[in-house]
Amino acid sequence: MSEIIEPRVLKGFRDYLPDAELQRAGLVRSLETVFRSFGFVPIDTPALEYAEILLGKGGGETDKQVYKFRDHGDRDVALRFDLTVPFARFMAEHADALYLPFRRYHMAKVWRGENTQRGRYREFMQCDFDIVGTDSAAADADIILTIAQAMRALDAGAVRIRVNHRGLFNRFLAARGVADKSVAVLRTVDKLEKIGPEETGALLAADLGDDTARAVLDFIRPESDFSSTLAKLYDACGTGDTEARAAHDRLADVHEIAVAAGAADSLALDPSITRGLDYYTGMVVETSLTDLPQIGSVCSGGRYNELASLYTTRKLPGVGASVGLDRLIAALEALNRSGGRPVVTRVLILDTGAADRSGAGAAAQRSAAQRTAAALRARGIATEVFPEPRKIQAQYAYAEKKGIPYAIILDDAALGKGVIPVRTLATRSTTDCATIEEAARIIEGTAAHG
Amino acid sequence: MSEIIEPRVLKGFRDYLPDAELQRAGLVRSLETVFRSFGFVPIDTPALEYAEILLGKGGGETDKQVYKFRDHGDRDVALRFDLTVPFARFMAEHADALYLPFRRYHMAKVWRGENTQRGRYREFMQCDFDIVGTDSAAADADIILTIAQAMRALDAGAVRIRVNHRGLFNRFLAARGVADKSVAVLRTVDKLEKIGPEETGALLAADLGDDTARAVLDFIRPESDFSSTLAKLYDACGTGDTEARAAHDRLADVHEIAVAAGAADSLALDPSITRGLDYYTGMVVETSLTDLPQIGSVCSGGRYNELASLYTTRKLPGVGASVGLDRLIAALEALNRSGGRPVVTRVLILDTGAADRSGAGAAAQRSAAQRTAAALRARGIATEVFPEPRKIQAQYAYAEKKGIPYAIILDDAALGKGVIPVRTLATRSTTDCATIEEAARIIEGTAAHG
Repeated sequence: MSEIIEPRVLKGFRDYLPDAELQRAGLVRSLETVFRSFGFVPIDTPALEYAEILLGKGGGETDKQVYKFRDHGDRDVALRFDLTVPFARFMAEHADALYLPFRRYHMAKVWRGENTQRGRYREFMQCDFDIVGTDSAAADADIILTIAQAMRALDAGAVRIRVNHRGLFNRFLAARGVADKSVAVLRTVDKLEKIGPEETGALLAADLGDDTARAVLDFIRPESDFSSTLAKLYDACGTGDTEARAAHDRLADVHEIAVAAGAADSLALDPSITRGLDYYTGMVVETSLTDLPQIGSVCSGGRYNELASLYTTRKLPGVGASVGLDRLIAALEALNRSGGRPVVTRVLILDTGAADRSGAGAAAQRSAAQRTAAALRARGIATEVFPEPRKIQAQYAYAEKKGIPYAIILDDAALGKGVIPVRTLATRSTTDCATIEEAARIIEGTAAHG
Repeated sequence: MSEIIEPRVLKGFRDYLPDAELQRAGLVRSLETVFRSFGFVPIDTPALEYAEILLGKGGGETDKQVYKFRDHGDRDVALRFDLTVPFARFMAEHADALYLPFRRYHMAKVWRGENTQRGRYREFMQCDFDIVGTDSAAADADIILTIAQAMRALDAGAVRIRVNHRGLFNRFLAARGVADKSVAVLRTVDKLEKIGPEETGALLAADLGDDTARAVLDFIRPESDFSSTLAKLYDACGTGDTEARAAHDRLADVHEIAVAAGAADSLALDPSITRGLDYYTGMVVETSLTDLPQIGSVCSGGRYNELASLYTTRKLPGVGASVGLDRLIAALEALNRSGGRPVVTRVLILDTGAADRSGAGAAAQRSAAQRTAAALRARGIATEVFPEPRKIQAQYAYAEKKGIPYAIILDDAALGKGVIPVRTLATRSTTDCATIEEAARIIEGTAAHG
């Protein structure tokens, strides 16, 4: 016999055991339902692509996080590290076969050889949704409405959806004469939540001087409501600035749509949100859980001018966001909102274990078990027949380990009486049911107690 | 501006556009429902694993089809090429955290650098389900019942589920004194459907001589029903053979269970099915579509003695099968059973395009559009609001391209009358609805025609 190979996964990778996978699949399905309710349709793209497509020309050497290798055909290939770049390639390739605006969602694995010390995984799922081919307030608003609905569907509790507009920040900095420092300022402002206003102010002052630093701190402090914050931001850009006016009007329209759709309660204008230093060009959005703000944004995104300019000369403006599923799962667990252990099998039909497996009694029991299972499944009840004659206690232990709530014991006595004994495993009480319908009602939890 | 990179995917890979992805996702969901109804639970494993785990020690060089490379940490890693090897590793690693028998399904992508000339893809989805930790007729039968139910759920039409038992074939060859030729004989017999009995006979005769070749041809010819075929096979093994007896009893039990579960109609004992020359050790199974037999097996599997012997000394006998999803999709299309174009968005609310976007009329229309959309979504109706004021004909064209069956036009006239005009795009007829409920009934297709 050959030597045993130690069974283990790569660092930064993990298995999903059934309970974890059921939870994840449930969340993905809830997201799917919400995405579709807003008209988003699914696509899929290959896990493996030309390295040049994913990394751009010459970008290959620099990105150490990307799983990149040479395939059998001597091509430089790479595993996708996000879903945005493949989507850009997809749109450039298929725009003629589609329709614009194109709303798609894509929930799939991506791979990054990141440092695992920060608790990061090297394989994780991204859940992206975007509207491409339109630059309009209605599209921006749809992303916000979808986020709000998604968080409700995932039972994440109250959320705060914070938006901002890159145009306002840029014009404000220009009005203060420090437009050239925007990258450094945005980076510092981005730290506000982590390091607090005092330290942020000190960092800004070192860069901009005391006066401008104070102005920035004032700029990024929200007012009491959306409209007054927006008015303050616009004022700070100086009057008559076209770009600032357009940004102001866009956010006002987005807010108006959210009000009409009944989703304005969770929406806030937060001028400290900056997100992404060069990708986003318009509205940006972050989502935090009211009950667990410290976990950070669980859904982020924004508007971009050009999705696919690497691959096509066609203009494809868009807006989208991405749900941070791993972070959300951690949050739901921390908040005790993960909904308890998922149940798949509702009822286990025990193997009553007649000693003589080939005898008529055993055959009758096996046959009754199968008929009962088929009848329950036909009523939509997930049913397992235990496949071998283990001790009854061992079969109960199996049911408990798997989280199966009910058992049926079709032994000679039950067959003789013509009843279906349904045992509720939590209470260890058994009800002899005269019909399959009665048994189904107990197992579905719809039986009247009396 | 930098040079455009040609957008394209690697040879043997493909994008799924929305209609194709919706179809695939729908089939996967149907399979999931069936798997769960039999108590199978989902797991997931990494796409990337240690090459040694996937290929065994020293096996790495030989398998040219496997995507294998060295990662940033200088580890030899590979993309999984099936779901069976990762499942074996998974069971060896997690058996203590689970329960036996363990029923799992796993539907996920695998990668093989295969020759694409035969129409094969290098990335494809596998849909596996297995019961591990028991060697029993009930487990074997459950795989068959699950296959039957899966094919019904996928609307694949009538199927023939053909089983055989490796033990009977082996003992028959032993009884004829040609056990040493079993590999060659199995390989030849496997070609029967392709090359016909005459050529098969000639090949066998060259190997075994005329008499034994005739006996083999007689052996692999099914009789009129399951039981008489089984009796013939057992007889051909000679009397008193323990292994043949066990194989006979196992198939008889499996058949009895299928009869009890009402699934015996599609089940046939076909002694020409051999499948897999060394992996399977007991029952083997193939599934063909009655209306399209030439497409080959759409779901195959069998019983194996040792799932995880490479990684553990623990004995893990199991039985399972794998749905050939790509082949099934092709078959459903060929049979016109793919169920028509999938609809996601049921209704498009048009942008009625008031010229003055900032005027009160435009605001009222946008607001009405959002309120109507929110009310329809709350009733489970997927609703899109068109996000910009394109020409109405262009918006209808969008709806048609996307397959949206209804439109709502909330223009000034409609708002003035206080109605919701619902247009059925196929007939170009519009109904003015007084309430959102009335509109919902039309869009759901539950309105009474009058």
